[in-house]
Amino acid sequence: MKQIIQSVKGARDFYPEDKARHNWLYERVRNVSTRFGYEEWDGPFLEKLELYAAKSGDELAREQAFVFPDRSGEMIMLRTELTPSLARMVAQRQGQLVMPLRWWSYGPFWRYEKPQQGRSREFFQWNIDLVGVNSPEGDAEMIAIAVEFLKSVDLSPSEVLIRVNDRQYMEVHLKSLDIAEDGKLSVFKLIDRYDKMKVEDWDANALELGLSRKQLDGLKTLLADMDGWHRSENLTRIFENLEALGVRDYVVFDPLIVRGIDYYTGMVFECFDVSRKFRSVLGGGHYDNLVADVGGDPLPGVGFAMGDMVIAVVLQDWGKLPVFADTRADVLVTLFDADNAAIAMGLAANMRRQGLRVAVYPQVDKLGKQFKYADRLGARFVTVIGPDEASEGQVTLKDLTAGTQLTIPLDAVAEQISHQLVDEKSS
Amino acid sequence: MKQIIQSVKGARDFYPEDKARHNWLYERVRNVSTRFGYEEWDGPFLEKLELYAAKSGDELAREQAFVFPDRSGEMIMLRTELTPSLARMVAQRQGQLVMPLRWWSYGPFWRYEKPQQGRSREFFQWNIDLVGVNSPEGDAEMIAIAVEFLKSVDLSPSEVLIRVNDRQYMEVHLKSLDIAEDGKLSVFKLIDRYDKMKVEDWDANALELGLSRKQLDGLKTLLADMDGWHRSENLTRIFENLEALGVRDYVVFDPLIVRGIDYYTGMVFECFDVSRKFRSVLGGGHYDNLVADVGGDPLPGVGFAMGDMVIAVVLQDWGKLPVFADTRADVLVTLFDADNAAIAMGLAANMRRQGLRVAVYPQVDKLGKQFKYADRLGARFVTVIGPDEASEGQVTLKDLTAGTQLTIPLDAVAEQISHQLVDEKSS
Repeated sequence: MKQIIQSVKGARDFYPEDKARHNWLYERVRNVSTRFGYEEWDGPFLEKLELYAAKSGDELAREQAFVFPDRSGEMIMLRTELTPSLARMVAQRQGQLVMPLRWWSYGPFWRYEKPQQGRSREFFQWNIDLVGVNSPEGDAEMIAIAVEFLKSVDLSPSEVLIRVNDRQYMEVHLKSLDIAEDGKLSVFKLIDRYDKMKVEDWDANALELGLSRKQLDGLKTLLADMDGWHRSENLTRIFENLEALGVRDYVVFDPLIVRGIDYYTGMVFECFDVSRKFRSVLGGGHYDNLVADVGGDPLPGVGFAMGDMVIAVVLQDWGKLPVFADTRADVLVTLFDADNAAIAMGLAANMRRQGLRVAVYPQVDKLGKQFKYADRLGARFVTVIGPDEASEGQVTLKDLTAGTQLTIPLDAVAEQISHQLVDEKSS
Repeated sequence: MKQIIQSVKGARDFYPEDKARHNWLYERVRNVSTRFGYEEWDGPFLEKLELYAAKSGDELAREQAFVFPDRSGEMIMLRTELTPSLARMVAQRQGQLVMPLRWWSYGPFWRYEKPQQGRSREFFQWNIDLVGVNSPEGDAEMIAIAVEFLKSVDLSPSEVLIRVNDRQYMEVHLKSLDIAEDGKLSVFKLIDRYDKMKVEDWDANALELGLSRKQLDGLKTLLADMDGWHRSENLTRIFENLEALGVRDYVVFDPLIVRGIDYYTGMVFECFDVSRKFRSVLGGGHYDNLVADVGGDPLPGVGFAMGDMVIAVVLQDWGKLPVFADTRADVLVTLFDADNAAIAMGLAANMRRQGLRVAVYPQVDKLGKQFKYADRLGARFVTVIGPDEASEGQVTLKDLTAGTQLTIPLDAVAEQISHQLVDEKSS
């Protein structure tokens, strides 16, 4: 076999079955976003490095960027996340946009990471934000959107859970342990690693950070207190709202969820498979100030992001990822002979005008070969117009599924097929 | 005003109204592609420079690429066109794919060009290909797809025309003028500039290329012969097929269309606004060999590409570009007071389950302010649940368009709104 030039490592080819899966996911994202009254938007795929330097929710994201000089010499990058673009675009029109703003987006992102299961260098991400709001109702709405998405892909609370916490609840308790304000973020980052390390290593880390034995014990008590959220008014009201929204069963309080990012200032959440075999499916939280770093006026909000890779792995693992069969056409129009090809083409045009998906076999060929093609592309119906049919303005219509055939007038074919397809959908 | 960090020059922000326009165009592209039995696919957005070096339809495209080293040191680039990826992906699965292949795609591309009307550095492009076919029926199908798209965006033959030629027809006549095989491509490139230069400059160019005065005269006779296609069997049959497909009125023969690219070997076509004020809306043609350069076995096909920028300018110019009003939600659910917020949230959840697009005002606030918000976001209906309504399990439903209001049971609201929306669509 000849050597084919390889694709870029971590970039993805979307053959039709891959694109169908992509569209299936996108359609579900669109559906839930739209039902909550969110508008679709998108940023550019290229941004200035300067924007990310001013505003990046996630330092790691910036470090993993594909950065290169524009031909003018300015450093630009492929976007690694959407928040900096959101901040820039909101700031640019801060006076004109109708607040609160409900925006969602689904587009490509790039990170230079080691490709592995659930991770590629080129990936898609759903981003959704409610901007200009500072309320437990808003926070609950964002979690409810995540839950409604999970429902729409048929994942139940026995398969995936959303783990919620509140940075302010944590900060109050860190303070009561006399953990200094400037050590807060390091402690959050430490908490973020709690599940990923051996107890003794984690303890050692904590002590290295300067925590006393007493502070360490206090911290571990905090992290083990699964009822602590009752002491947070914000979390209490969020859970009440989740109850009202009918999504409470997907959500648990988890003091280990802190998200090691400066950006979040209130409620934070992540969705995990219950087996905890995979990285988080989605994550987000409440922020106090979306736009100040890029030059706008302070603006709070809440949002989350979901990549397309981990969700696919989780769906696959639970047997919930549909198989996308090839059904690219309803009808194949065969070309029997050159004399009658024009009639067949006209029939195809007529059926398309009536909304059918019609492929024409693009040259005169053996009928057997054309039928085999119909079969392989999943076309249910095949039309044949030979000299006999043509002389009488008729067409032979074969139903490959039923194994039947009829000879009917040319102008009756589209209706015949549509009826049969509709009948079957409704039966 | 504070200084907001700027976006990258030639990159585009998609605010919701821009994204709505993008989706409107994408939906039309999808609809026509699907009706012809084509499957959606996509390549990665990053490819190796090596692939483009082996296989690029358009040299200029490669020169205009954003190229940069991967962290491994390998040169990669943002795709400037789709053909190299198509060739690679088809070659990789050449034994498995069901031929003929009907594939379409709509995605982002990047070229470092001077941004101007109808041109940006980051743009979207529709690509559609029928691969594994060498027939006038296939060629005609591709032109018919372009025409059906033009129809679907309401452009008529008095506004846009598809100009068709055939490289083989041209080559036969160049040969009869004794123009050497190796000078062919330069002559095609010269023909490509015929419309863009003064006659005397063009003539001078032709003579510089080594054409004799007699060859030049012969060439000009060829370029003026608008009936020449009758002498090409391929073009004759293509026009017959276009007639059968009901799209002949959008298509004219034009010997000036040659497309200055090596890649095309048979029929070539471009679509222009009749005023000729703008660059071509779309262009494509027949090729003999998609995959050989990347290591596959010879494979013919036909395809075209359409960027999203020129078509938008042309539509705008003819007054055919819709205005996308903000109608992000059908209903705004207001929050009257904290006590009854949970009931309102439950109502919202219920209406969403029934397929309505429902925004909740995300905190208790003055009703006037909430109504004003409903108005600004284009919501037709508003619900209010105050203490009176709550105590009786009722809700006040206001219709902002009709200026009416009713007080009805909570569980009757979704149906009431759906009925009203459906009634109006059908009236």
